[in-house]
Amino acid sequence: MMGTVTPAYDTLTALQLRLHHLGHMQALATWDRMTQMPAGGASARAAAQAELAQLLRDLKHDPSLHAQFGLAEREPLSELKRVNLQLMQREQRLSQAVSNDTAARVLQCSDATMATWNSARQANEWQSFSAPLTRLVAAVRDEAEQLGQALGLSRYDALLERHEAGLRTLRVKSLFGEVTQWLPRLIQQARDRQSTEDVIQPEGPFPIETQRQLCQTIIGMLGFDFERGRLDASAHPFTGGVPEDVRLTTRYKEGTFLPALLAAMHEAGHACYFQNLPREWLGQPLTEPHSAALHEGQALSFERQLAPSLAFAQALSPLLKTAFGTQVAFEPHNLSRMMTRVQPGPIRVEADELTYPAHIILRTEIELELIDGALNVDDIPAAWNERMQRLLGVDTRGYLSQGPLQDVHWARGMFGYFPTYLVGAMVAAQCNAAMRADMPDLDVRIAAGDLGCVGSWLKPRVWQVGAQFNAEDLLRQITGEGLNPDCLRRHFERRYL
Amino acid sequence: MMGTVTPAYDTLTALQLRLHHLGHMQALATWDRMTQMPAGGASARAAAQAELAQLLRDLKHDPSLHAQFGLAEREPLSELKRVNLQLMQREQRLSQAVSNDTAARVLQCSDATMATWNSARQANEWQSFSAPLTRLVAAVRDEAEQLGQALGLSRYDALLERHEAGLRTLRVKSLFGEVTQWLPRLIQQARDRQSTEDVIQPEGPFPIETQRQLCQTIIGMLGFDFERGRLDASAHPFTGGVPEDVRLTTRYKEGTFLPALLAAMHEAGHACYFQNLPREWLGQPLTEPHSAALHEGQALSFERQLAPSLAFAQALSPLLKTAFGTQVAFEPHNLSRMMTRVQPGPIRVEADELTYPAHIILRTEIELELIDGALNVDDIPAAWNERMQRLLGVDTRGYLSQGPLQDVHWARGMFGYFPTYLVGAMVAAQCNAAMRADMPDLDVRIAAGDLGCVGSWLKPRVWQVGAQFNAEDLLRQITGEGLNPDCLRRHFERRYL
Repeated sequence: MMGTVTPAYDTLTALQLRLHHLGHMQALATWDRMTQMPAGGASARAAAQAELAQLLRDLKHDPSLHAQFGLAEREPLSELKRVNLQLMQREQRLSQAVSNDTAARVLQCSDATMATWNSARQANEWQSFSAPLTRLVAAVRDEAEQLGQALGLSRYDALLERHEAGLRTLRVKSLFGEVTQWLPRLIQQARDRQSTEDVIQPEGPFPIETQRQLCQTIIGMLGFDFERGRLDASAHPFTGGVPEDVRLTTRYKEGTFLPALLAAMHEAGHACYFQNLPREWLGQPLTEPHSAALHEGQALSFERQLAPSLAFAQALSPLLKTAFGTQVAFEPHNLSRMMTRVQPGPIRVEADELTYPAHIILRTEIELELIDGALNVDDIPAAWNERMQRLLGVDTRGYLSQGPLQDVHWARGMFGYFPTYLVGAMVAAQCNAAMRADMPDLDVRIAAGDLGCVGSWLKPRVWQVGAQFNAEDLLRQITGEGLNPDCLRRHFERRYL
Repeated sequence: MMGTVTPAYDTLTALQLRLHHLGHMQALATWDRMTQMPAGGASARAAAQAELAQLLRDLKHDPSLHAQFGLAEREPLSELKRVNLQLMQREQRLSQAVSNDTAARVLQCSDATMATWNSARQANEWQSFSAPLTRLVAAVRDEAEQLGQALGLSRYDALLERHEAGLRTLRVKSLFGEVTQWLPRLIQQARDRQSTEDVIQPEGPFPIETQRQLCQTIIGMLGFDFERGRLDASAHPFTGGVPEDVRLTTRYKEGTFLPALLAAMHEAGHACYFQNLPREWLGQPLTEPHSAALHEGQALSFERQLAPSLAFAQALSPLLKTAFGTQVAFEPHNLSRMMTRVQPGPIRVEADELTYPAHIILRTEIELELIDGALNVDDIPAAWNERMQRLLGVDTRGYLSQGPLQDVHWARGMFGYFPTYLVGAMVAAQCNAAMRADMPDLDVRIAAGDLGCVGSWLKPRVWQVGAQFNAEDLLRQITGEGLNPDCLRRHFERRYL
């Protein structure tokens, strides 16, 4: 065997590749569980996946890695390899900062909270959920404390860092504070303008097989490569699999076709990003998501920037007529109106793009205070109701299941994730503005059915860059400035005013 | 932690369970590869599965196991646990008998042979295939030599033992010798009798979705549990997955419905066996197949014993009329005639049940001589032609692709497997005779649609017994005697004369 000049680095990348291969099996098993597995297979699958997860943890936590990192740092590495090494070290720090006891406690508390979540939602009551969530928040605070100590960050900053490299609480407060300034008024203006607008509802049924073919056609036009992936159905749409074989899903209802199509377009954004990560780095942290907002930004580029536009409606209209027969509702202006209807409501996942930021701001404020200790779990419902009223004018008093019980995130111990949804919307708006500046004929091309031009723009700028830069730095490189909520505001103003 | 009185045995069973869980992931990945995976995912999947396979090998070959086996032997074990331990030791011996060098050489030679197999078939020529196969046979002979030394068996006995615990060359020669005595005359008599018989061919097309539903209905009636398994389509029908979630497949063509149905019934036999292995022993060798013939016997119980019977045709007939509309061809007698047509031909997988044994006898004789050294690879075509003429009266001279190039087994280094197909047919015939003795009204029940009665009989006697006994011993327990080819002869005589 030839010796290499970077033996420690090579050892570390070989381990990464091994983890990538075993992670492939895990990703496949998860996809199968959500899309194919018969109910009776659940417990055997859980045991099998737990076994592999333990094996992956053991490999990642091999104590001999520490010495390899020390050696690799002093090896002669190219710039990209050095970034890759730093990302490995980041991952190591994140996964080793939390003691086994605390990690186990978070998991245990999360299981206990999840166990009450569904029944609490169904019973529309806070009491039974509050006790386990209180314990879970305490455990997550300990986890955040340990993470923060290892990373030199505050508790909430540490939780943010896990999902969004480089994002800090101060930045979130500043970005979201700006949005809070202009959002309520903008929503009001949009609703006033839409109050005289007629929207014709399409008449179903829309056969599911036809919907499936339509989704397949559209995401193919967006650039999804069916030679290296599949579209299936699942209860909750998601993108899974591996970059070499991406599995995205949507869900169908016979009575309506837009939800399935929009969910498929959303997932196609994630999926195209996934498929176009640089092949030669697959398995290395350089291609692993370290920015949930960049990922969400790709999904929203398709679902929120592209789909509701009149240009897209012009491309979609003839396809709908071919698929389901001609209806007045399929005229482009009506389609676009359907997809841009603003209607404040209590449920985040049903919210339109204009009221959506309010849902995120509310959750971010509350979880920040929970982690800081400024708010107790028992105070969540009141804080929720007050903010929903203030931000959206929606009265959620007494509707806990449509209030703080609607999301699974907190019950799963996932704090610090919600902000990335809104940061993702900013990423999408900012990229879209830059794309429009680069392609003055964008709308003409889209209206003519060239949906691929969006991906062609994103591909070299975002998808193929992988994890070299965090969201701010990548935006700076593409658009000349870091995150700028004004882009989101201008996008809303252009579309809704 | 409480100490146990059988710590070494418990350590070994815990490892088995771990292997079972990781094997679950491997089985799922294989099923997905055959049924779902887009072509572009192949190389990533191969890398992922190879990684897991290596990991499984490392776990199995952990050198510390040897001491555990020694300790476990002296622990106080129940009778079943002792059998389980012996099966573990058998598995260990089989997998460790062959040196790494030889195992790698077999694999390498097999890859090289496989690489020429398809092109040789297409070109209908022996030359390019012969050289790599010669090297592969030499490697397999070394493998068999090492296996034999570890097991105290001759070369071919050792290869047999790997697929069929307890089966020996002498026994195979005696069993197959008997069949050779009566088979050619029986085939002739059946053909004479059928020469005046009219068979009406059903008229298609038979929509694939309707065929799928029909297959689903029939295998459900046979006892396959869709709560713990699925039916899908693949290029080559197979049964995969895990006992807790069994995935069987068939393949459909629009022009004909019988091949898909019969393949589904065949796989359903494997699948029901798989699903009904004793749950409390899952993961332990006690539930792992050590008898390919017992497994094949279950498949043939459905496909060959049940499906072509008039009673089954009476149950099938109304289902076909509902599915595809009424046709004269769907009358029970005609259906049964379609499924019992005897027609000697060159291709094994297309052979009817009466001529099928000849294909196996021919292959067994040839591979025995190859492993013994009595025959060279270059002499295979001549030996093949001579035997095909003698056993079936079929002239295969010059048709290599329909002769010794038709099967993948030898190219994959799989010697000692072919005999289990015919032993499996004997198992099925013998079980069927015993079942008929136990249930005089069997045909009446089947004709009335109670297909489940076959499985109800097999379940406690075969499926739930797992690997406690080899095929001969299990038959002895169920039927009072070991393998008896006369049962197969009587089955043929009853059906064909």
